[in-house]
Amino acid sequence: MNLMKSLIPAAAIVVLPQMGLAQEDAATGEAALHTQYIFTTLLFLMAGFLVFFMAAGFAMLEGGLVRSKNVAMQMIKNVALFSFAAIMYWLIGFNLMYPGDGWTIAGWVGPFFSTTVLDPVGVPAAEAALDYASVGSDFFFQLVFVAATASIVSGAVAERIKLWPFLIFVIVLTGVLYPISGSWQWGGGWLSEAGFSDFAGSTVVHSVGGWAALAGCLILGPRIGKYKDGKVHPMPGSNLALATLGTFILWLGWFGFNGGSQLAMGTVGDVSDVSRIFANTNMAAAAGAVAALIMTQVLYKKPDLTMVLNGALAGLVSITAEPLAPTLFGALWIGAVGGIIVVFAVPMLDKFKIDDVVGAIPVHLFAGIWGTIAVIFYGEASLITQLTGIVAYGIFTFVAALILWSILKAAMGIRVSEEDEINGLDMAELGMEAYPEFSKG
Amino acid sequence: MNLMKSLIPAAAIVVLPQMGLAQEDAATGEAALHTQYIFTTLLFLMAGFLVFFMAAGFAMLEGGLVRSKNVAMQMIKNVALFSFAAIMYWLIGFNLMYPGDGWTIAGWVGPFFSTTVLDPVGVPAAEAALDYASVGSDFFFQLVFVAATASIVSGAVAERIKLWPFLIFVIVLTGVLYPISGSWQWGGGWLSEAGFSDFAGSTVVHSVGGWAALAGCLILGPRIGKYKDGKVHPMPGSNLALATLGTFILWLGWFGFNGGSQLAMGTVGDVSDVSRIFANTNMAAAAGAVAALIMTQVLYKKPDLTMVLNGALAGLVSITAEPLAPTLFGALWIGAVGGIIVVFAVPMLDKFKIDDVVGAIPVHLFAGIWGTIAVIFYGEASLITQLTGIVAYGIFTFVAALILWSILKAAMGIRVSEEDEINGLDMAELGMEAYPEFSKG
Amino acid sequence: MNLMKSLIPAAAIVVLPQMGLAQEDAATGEAALHTQYIFTTLLFLMAGFLVFFMAAGFAMLEGGLVRSKNVAMQMIKNVALFSFAAIMYWLIGFNLMYPGDGWTIAGWVGPFFSTTVLDPVGVPAAEAALDYASVGSDFFFQLVFVAATASIVSGAVAERIKLWPFLIFVIVLTGVLYPISGSWQWGGGWLSEAGFSDFAGSTVVHSVGGWAALAGCLILGPRIGKYKDGKVHPMPGSNLALATLGTFILWLGWFGFNGGSQLAMGTVGDVSDVSRIFANTNMAAAAGAVAALIMTQVLYKKPDLTMVLNGALAGLVSITAEPLAPTLFGALWIGAVGGIIVVFAVPMLDKFKIDDVVGAIPVHLFAGIWGTIAVIFYGEASLITQLTGIVAYGIFTFVAALILWSILKAAMGIRVSEEDEINGLDMAELGMEAYPEFSKG
Repeated sequence: MNLMKSLIPAAAIVVLPQMGLAQEDAATGEAALHTQYIFTTLLFLMAGFLVFFMAAGFAMLEGGLVRSKNVAMQMIKNVALFSFAAIMYWLIGFNLMYPGDGWTIAGWVGPFFSTTVLDPVGVPAAEAALDYASVGSDFFFQLVFVAATASIVSGAVAERIKLWPFLIFVIVLTGVLYPISGSWQWGGGWLSEAGFSDFAGSTVVHSVGGWAALAGCLILGPRIGKYKDGKVHPMPGSNLALATLGTFILWLGWFGFNGGSQLAMGTVGDVSDVSRIFANTNMAAAAGAVAALIMTQVLYKKPDLTMVLNGALAGLVSITAEPLAPTLFGALWIGAVGGIIVVFAVPMLDKFKIDDVVGAIPVHLFAGIWGTIAVIFYGEASLITQLTGIVAYGIFTFVAALILWSILKAAMGIRVSEEDEINGLDMAELGMEAYPEFSKG
Repeated sequence: MNLMKSLIPAAAIVVLPQMGLAQEDAATGEAALHTQYIFTTLLFLMAGFLVFFMAAGFAMLEGGLVRSKNVAMQMIKNVALFSFAAIMYWLIGFNLMYPGDGWTIAGWVGPFFSTTVLDPVGVPAAEAALDYASVGSDFFFQLVFVAATASIVSGAVAERIKLWPFLIFVIVLTGVLYPISGSWQWGGGWLSEAGFSDFAGSTVVHSVGGWAALAGCLILGPRIGKYKDGKVHPMPGSNLALATLGTFILWLGWFGFNGGSQLAMGTVGDVSDVSRIFANTNMAAAAGAVAALIMTQVLYKKPDLTMVLNGALAGLVSITAEPLAPTLFGALWIGAVGGIIVVFAVPMLDKFKIDDVVGAIPVHLFAGIWGTIAVIFYGEASLITQLTGIVAYGIFTFVAALILWSILKAAMGIRVSEEDEINGLDMAELGMEAYPEFSKG
Repeated sequence: MNLMKSLIPAAAIVVLPQMGLAQEDAATGEAALHTQYIFTTLLFLMAGFLVFFMAAGFAMLEGGLVRSKNVAMQMIKNVALFSFAAIMYWLIGFNLMYPGDGWTIAGWVGPFFSTTVLDPVGVPAAEAALDYASVGSDFFFQLVFVAATASIVSGAVAERIKLWPFLIFVIVLTGVLYPISGSWQWGGGWLSEAGFSDFAGSTVVHSVGGWAALAGCLILGPRIGKYKDGKVHPMPGSNLALATLGTFILWLGWFGFNGGSQLAMGTVGDVSDVSRIFANTNMAAAAGAVAALIMTQVLYKKPDLTMVLNGALAGLVSITAEPLAPTLFGALWIGAVGGIIVVFAVPMLDKFKIDDVVGAIPVHLFAGIWGTIAVIFYGEASLITQLTGIVAYGIFTFVAALILWSILKAAMGIRVSEEDEINGLDMAELGMEAYPEFSKG
């Protein structure tokens, strides 16, 4: 999403001298206007279903990294957060984030509130945004991004948060907070005008999720027993096969996350750029995994699977701010630094007694900041504008999330009772177990 | 699949004055005929692999909702049912369901039996169905639908059925029953002519699977101990992480299920419609999940993960009969009603002592009926024709399935012995365990 | 990949009389040159992400078929092997395998060593390989193939190999061995010129992986206790639901593996061929599964889930050498023979005390050989050339792998200690467990 959604009305296109345009098309072999629209719309649909699947990836990753007594809770949180995000983004978020569209389409309710209205059935070409893509595909693609932000929070605050306060947080995050800050950059707002560069959302999506998660962890406090007698007590995930599956699904989804953010696939240059992005995204993930593998081997004498998984994810987050411009070697070292950051950041958070259950803050916040800075080596942004964006998103999201978590804490309590936490959230909050038949060791 | 497969021979296309057609294309920028064919074929391939993956979704959902002693059986059933469906649909089903094609292609054996014949290798444009798509892509797309129908049955009759009678049922269902009733609507048959409307198969696929499942549950009877001393004894699924994964995979596959049923992607209008369908399909699933979440919170004071999963699926089934015409708000309320139906239907079935292990009947039959009726609010069908279709599919499938299950019961027995059921089907039927190392609680 | 990558420079295309070409396009309705490039590039991207996901499929299949004490190790091996393969293929492999490209692009270091260089950002049409696809998409597609080869080895040598020697083997295999032998056929080398036919890699990918696995199993020796007192002691997989999921994911990925190997999607003939390939690939998998189901029922009186899964995979490997030319019936019987081969080959390997943990050698080597031979029934290859290719790949890979495994054994040891093997590789090598909470039966 290196460009805000086009504000040029489709009408401007159709008044072009058509025969002339078409002849030029024919002469150069260039894909004609309708074909370009179909390609870009298809890009959004394809990238959209890949990013949708990241919801399953987050659920499996988190379900694998929590203890078995909290797995069902993590599942219901992930299904519900995606569902509420989908509804809220339709109800408010999409038009709040992209006011350029909201102002011109029906369904407008007030200056900051309008629901999303799709293209009519069988939209005639003259009424479609021929220079871009169908509203439905664009909405779907944007919607699965906002859900990713909420998923990031879910993992960090696991194993002690109540269901409903978490879901209310998600509703506000996806309906209001993310769209407001997102509009600064992708809605054509002040950061976009200031030259801030964040291709697919290292900052706009990932660090925003990370800041919200950090605020949650601070207000919630660590899990019982995590930091006792001045020591860090590891609480190993219950199912590392599931966590690995989740990581692979996220990696898969990231091809859509970054590739779709090219926002166009109708020309030779655009589809080649999407290809560059695929190759770079894959390289950064691989480099992040390898870096974490080598680092944990060197530091701890044994490779750490969880670190390797988070290393791959950190590589992916790192390349997300600029997956197009770097060479493959650029993607390699940017991703590798991301993997290394995770290896150092996880114990560092523990030192501050910030209990992030799945490592979401190192992966999405720290590597997200790194990736946003790394743009200066390949992209066209300056360090100052990049830092401006990082700080602006950080302050806004962190403060808003702190306030929101505090209100929820005061109003209804956000943490389960000590007894419930020890017995597990699944029985306490849901009255069921994820693995009822397997006796616990 | 709102249209039966085109019966216009490709030859009719190529006799059009070609220069005129092409010039018109150039003038309007419209995608040319070949490009349209490629786009629609690509739609079927893409949608096809997404729907294919639903086979994995059903397997994981069902494997997660049965007890661990029956998981391997559920796995082999799902792999085998897909495989037999693929063979039967090639052998008989496809040409039985779409006779318009069968009559014109080679490989014809008799009036109701011919195997599927693909386009020749490197088919010249003049011999291809330029106004539609390649035979291979169409066959593949239709084939994964029929497998979904069989998967629905698999879950309902789990934990007590023998393997081979089940597979024989699948062979007849996918080779004969589904194709016959499917041809009524999608093969250009009497229901299609009567104006019945079922875009992607709330009735043609889902309720057909549901009716077959219901007949199976009635003939089989409930699992031992499920209804004892006038009470319902819950038998919790062994792996809710797996069930959640299965639900997400099904949700993903549904974009192909409904989106591919547009049957065209070569024009601005068609690709925009596919986009509408993606957005609506996603919204209905989200609404179904949220509705089930809120309903179980209100009714039972605790949200129920299994209900939320089935709520999402019921939302998907509900929107399947008309995923194009509704607004996003339409998709929301149609899906939400589907989710609510599930919450009430599951205990209702238990009252009648109908033991549907995974909730397939509420999700696919009840929500399928609801979705087919809901067409009248947005589509162009009347309540009468919709009810006609619902009843016709219900009577035909339910009666045929009852007869078939009864014959199988008389001929070879369909239920394992009491001892085998208590010990688990995995050891009894397969001599293996799905989780041999994890001791049972 | 029935064609080596085109060696025709893109420049040759653009000197064609453009107006004439374009007018011909318009007259025939044929997709114009740019559009064709976009379609083929898109094919590689789509097929590429499907094949990428096979990495998850292999991980889940292998993780499900090993004992729980070795699951975390299998996970880290699969993530790391993919990551190292991605880096090595960029660093050396791609240009070593396709020297036609390496010689013409920047980044050339020496006669056999150059890193991959992508198309520039926003590549102008005049500089793109308009008759083929973008470098990034091609590189990505080729890269996920090489990773599949390494995954095959991973499963066979599981439960006793040390992590780092395995990864060093992968580094050499993916950076050097596979690219060298791959270039014989797909790089336009001597086997390609001799008329050897291997469309998507039954031999080039699968049997190469199988030979490397066989060499590894021979050098490593069987697991402790596997062959004791003259008997074969089964060591059942710990999670057959996971193994089934892995199989479904591999099946899904195979649509990309075989379909993408058409290497073109920009014409009616090409996209129809991709469709044929999808349908045939699916049929072969189904037939392999059914054949294994029936064979194990007949031979052992009980169907064997693991054999059915491997039967489906063997069907897929069998059709990989020629997924285009056969009819659906051809795909059926070719796949079925593959499934039958597995059922006989697994106990045969045990007779020779070759301990292949997941059945990778029967599936990928034996069915790969079968598939390569089966080309003679539908393709244009002679038995002699096919046997030549099979033997050439076999000798080169097996000997090279034997030498490499032996060097690794002498230099650092490749097998964990007896104590570590009994306690499980997860604790010994990684210091963690995949399922720490589930007590072992």
